[in-house]
Amino acid sequence: MEEYTLLIDTEDAKGLVYNISKVLFANNLNIEQNAEYVDSETNKFFMRTIISGKISQNILLKELKEVLPQNAEIKLNKKAKKDVVILATKESHVLGDLLIRYIDGELNANIKAVIANHEDLRSLVENFGIPFTCISAEGMSREEHEELVIKEVNNYEPELIVLAKYMRILTPNFVETFPRKVLNIHHSFLPAFIGANPYKQAHQRGVKIIGATAHYVTNDLDEGPIIAQDVVRIDHSYSWQDMRKAGRNVEKIVLSDAFQMLLDDKVFVHGNKTVIL
Amino acid sequence: MEEYTLLIDTEDAKGLVYNISKVLFANNLNIEQNAEYVDSETNKFFMRTIISGKISQNILLKELKEVLPQNAEIKLNKKAKKDVVILATKESHVLGDLLIRYIDGELNANIKAVIANHEDLRSLVENFGIPFTCISAEGMSREEHEELVIKEVNNYEPELIVLAKYMRILTPNFVETFPRKVLNIHHSFLPAFIGANPYKQAHQRGVKIIGATAHYVTNDLDEGPIIAQDVVRIDHSYSWQDMRKAGRNVEKIVLSDAFQMLLDDKVFVHGNKTVIL
Amino acid sequence: MEEYTLLIDTEDAKGLVYNISKVLFANNLNIEQNAEYVDSETNKFFMRTIISGKISQNILLKELKEVLPQNAEIKLNKKAKKDVVILATKESHVLGDLLIRYIDGELNANIKAVIANHEDLRSLVENFGIPFTCISAEGMSREEHEELVIKEVNNYEPELIVLAKYMRILTPNFVETFPRKVLNIHHSFLPAFIGANPYKQAHQRGVKIIGATAHYVTNDLDEGPIIAQDVVRIDHSYSWQDMRKAGRNVEKIVLSDAFQMLLDDKVFVHGNKTVIL
Amino acid sequence: MEEYTLLIDTEDAKGLVYNISKVLFANNLNIEQNAEYVDSETNKFFMRTIISGKISQNILLKELKEVLPQNAEIKLNKKAKKDVVILATKESHVLGDLLIRYIDGELNANIKAVIANHEDLRSLVENFGIPFTCISAEGMSREEHEELVIKEVNNYEPELIVLAKYMRILTPNFVETFPRKVLNIHHSFLPAFIGANPYKQAHQRGVKIIGATAHYVTNDLDEGPIIAQDVVRIDHSYSWQDMRKAGRNVEKIVLSDAFQMLLDDKVFVHGNKTVIL
Repeated sequence: MEEYTLLIDTEDAKGLVYNISKVLFANNLNIEQNAEYVDSETNKFFMRTIISGKISQNILLKELKEVLPQNAEIKLNKKAKKDVVILATKESHVLGDLLIRYIDGELNANIKAVIANHEDLRSLVENFGIPFTCISAEGMSREEHEELVIKEVNNYEPELIVLAKYMRILTPNFVETFPRKVLNIHHSFLPAFIGANPYKQAHQRGVKIIGATAHYVTNDLDEGPIIAQDVVRIDHSYSWQDMRKAGRNVEKIVLSDAFQMLLDDKVFVHGNKTVIL
Repeated sequence: MEEYTLLIDTEDAKGLVYNISKVLFANNLNIEQNAEYVDSETNKFFMRTIISGKISQNILLKELKEVLPQNAEIKLNKKAKKDVVILATKESHVLGDLLIRYIDGELNANIKAVIANHEDLRSLVENFGIPFTCISAEGMSREEHEELVIKEVNNYEPELIVLAKYMRILTPNFVETFPRKVLNIHHSFLPAFIGANPYKQAHQRGVKIIGATAHYVTNDLDEGPIIAQDVVRIDHSYSWQDMRKAGRNVEKIVLSDAFQMLLDDKVFVHGNKTVIL
Repeated sequence: MEEYTLLIDTEDAKGLVYNISKVLFANNLNIEQNAEYVDSETNKFFMRTIISGKISQNILLKELKEVLPQNAEIKLNKKAKKDVVILATKESHVLGDLLIRYIDGELNANIKAVIANHEDLRSLVENFGIPFTCISAEGMSREEHEELVIKEVNNYEPELIVLAKYMRILTPNFVETFPRKVLNIHHSFLPAFIGANPYKQAHQRGVKIIGATAHYVTNDLDEGPIIAQDVVRIDHSYSWQDMRKAGRNVEKIVLSDAFQMLLDDKVFVHGNKTVIL
Repeated sequence: MEEYTLLIDTEDAKGLVYNISKVLFANNLNIEQNAEYVDSETNKFFMRTIISGKISQNILLKELKEVLPQNAEIKLNKKAKKDVVILATKESHVLGDLLIRYIDGELNANIKAVIANHEDLRSLVENFGIPFTCISAEGMSREEHEELVIKEVNNYEPELIVLAKYMRILTPNFVETFPRKVLNIHHSFLPAFIGANPYKQAHQRGVKIIGATAHYVTNDLDEGPIIAQDVVRIDHSYSWQDMRKAGRNVEKIVLSDAFQMLLDDKVFVHGNKTVIL
């Protein structure tokens, strides 16, 4: 029996649950899991339903469209692994963590390739049997380098791009080429310590807790919709290098949590926020 | 416009969401919030829906009964404050925390009375304008004392009884007199350190984290369905008295969290567990 | 036998521990607890030692001065309750929590008075037997009002002033009148969301965790040395009012933690940071 | 300049800090870090000091012995990587995490070999350039198999043995062969859920938080001195398999935390507890 994830993002209206469940019932489908959220401030309705049964996708989508408000976004994703490309630079803790999870079968993903702007991570990646491409940025403008990266990414037609400590700032062109497809990990508890060297900033401010934030990449640096955050306690004895080390644990757990939510179609973008069902 | 919380606890069946939402739609009701959970292991379906509109309770319940499996439990609670009695002994940190929340308007409750087996807390309680009754256990058997407590509790016809560090073990008679109505806070991370002096037990074992557990009271000591838990880090320098002090913060937060879930009708009992929607 | 807390804050030098312990040993004193911290970046040495025995304070301080670098700060505090004044406005959750802890004997303090700029909290405070003074700011300039508050605070000669959700911005005059004596709780995880309405700011940014920060008050708004921080998880379903409610638990725990550290002489100010021993 | 870690574990006595620091001062050594703990209940004194300078180990140890109580344990460890052997079975999440940290240079260790009772992890380990030995237990008694494992471990003369989800129960013989040298990770928040299948036990009990515990191995199953613990929140929707997946994050962080404490000589054994300085 097939399983699908039905995702509905629409303005709220009376009878939505009734109308949607009527269609599902009429098509003889089972509801395995269901979660809804109504944001009363913006009058928006979000629904994520895992359905099973014999599904004719086109018919189902057509019937749902008929009972939903005109601008409703409806997605019907077959439960399957998503194709993913990972971008990295030199650091291995986040990437390595993803690779270990990958061989453990924890990730609902096909990691098609890792693309980096340095050679350092080649052997780590290739030892896991995953293609590695180094595209050095040396002697190039940001735009020239990015064009090459975009081209290489496009070779794999990924549904999702994960920045696993990719230490380059992306241009609007990159962001627009892959809308709502790029996941980043920032090594601070956003919105604190935006930009470069957040651990140095945290050390200077004397905070007692540090964190990490996984978010969609948008054109505003470190300002995209937040998907997951976590923190760890520190104290006065931590140098900024100690903070960086302690922060690694949080970075890798937070990125992997957010990544799995995206792979499982749990994340809706709602303005500059996320709704997670 | 009136708001009601609809609670459904039944065996799972195809079309439940459709059938329920059809009844709500036919009665011209709005769904303000909705959450469901299907436990596939036991084939049970739980649903909590906040509905608004003009409601005829009897008609709605009758129509829901017609579309639900025969043994379905259906509750329709008008959104209102619940009458509560608190039992205590000598310690004031949990009780005091509840009283401060009460005057802050945080609790969806009417605290009708505090009943204790010692006099210590009288002035604290009475200063908040709440009736205080002391029923000393001195010179009585457990059963005799409990009979007096039950009688006093019954004077207030509470929907919920909160044991705010009530340091007496209840008999099966008490538990059966108030089924699924008694909330307790145990000062350990259950199932670790059941019974007396959990902080001493924790100190002896050398744990690095201690906790507290809010649970329904059943006839098995500290074995009832768990509603909420939380923890706090400690280290080797903590005496058991230090643990007790650190644990107080956790005890009062956990009890209050669980209490608010009960007041908001968020807790279903499922065997010896809880489902929280 | 008397107990004292010895606090040393000096530039680092070879043999400090030896020289200090030699003086203590020569005076026939016991070291009950000892903690040191050397900040290698700034070459600063901090030490907190709890000593017991028959102590002649003047002699001990003189002998310590002789073996320490010239500008060393040395304090020798008899273990005793500190006199404290609390400032508040209308909200009772932080103040109420302090009062409950106070009657529990958790705080090593004498709460001499609560001063507020509104009448709302009078009966709460007076029910605990503590003097309450309302100094309304109506029709006054900030400076005029503050002069009255300073005068009233000075009547109690407090060693510590706790702002328990005192919702007025202090002038440099206030800060300089009570240097390193004013503790504040800010309802965000600083440095995120400085200034007014941090929960609204957090809601707008779509964070997944909120927090609170206890810090010394300095002339830069929400920029003083941080003493304690903690956080709580939230999700997309939280309105800013829900965040405020969830944040209350964190605010009161964090403020009380920081307060107790100050009462126990555990906090050194080190530039714009704290060292906690 | 050389750095050493000085570790002292002795009954408490007056003047210990003075006497120790006198010896260090007389030997012209710098104290880089210092931490002490006195357990007043058992009258024990623990001290960990990082010293630098030109050190003659024998002289220093002799002089310290002269000023310390007769049965004092004194260790002087040159700051260096420790030789380590890892035992594993089939699961890769904890082992893989250690390997990624190892190539990142996070661990103050030489991982000499991984020994497993199954072949599954061979390619993972060998890809990191680390020797892998499989010693199958098939057709052998527990004692026979263990003798082979002990022999293989002894080939590497490790200072520390890490059980990275090694799913076999060790005999007293193994424990006594490597006293205070064997670190284990148990997938529950001990002392809750001792023994097999802790996630199934946790699921059955309906807890709201699960955890993991790193501890020294002793002859009592899951009863050795606890070094580190951490937890993660779950809810009613988690199957025991979901718990296992969520628990993996905690297991690997907790084991790695404890491992690093051991590598940095931070852990004293104190009866059946640990003191961590």
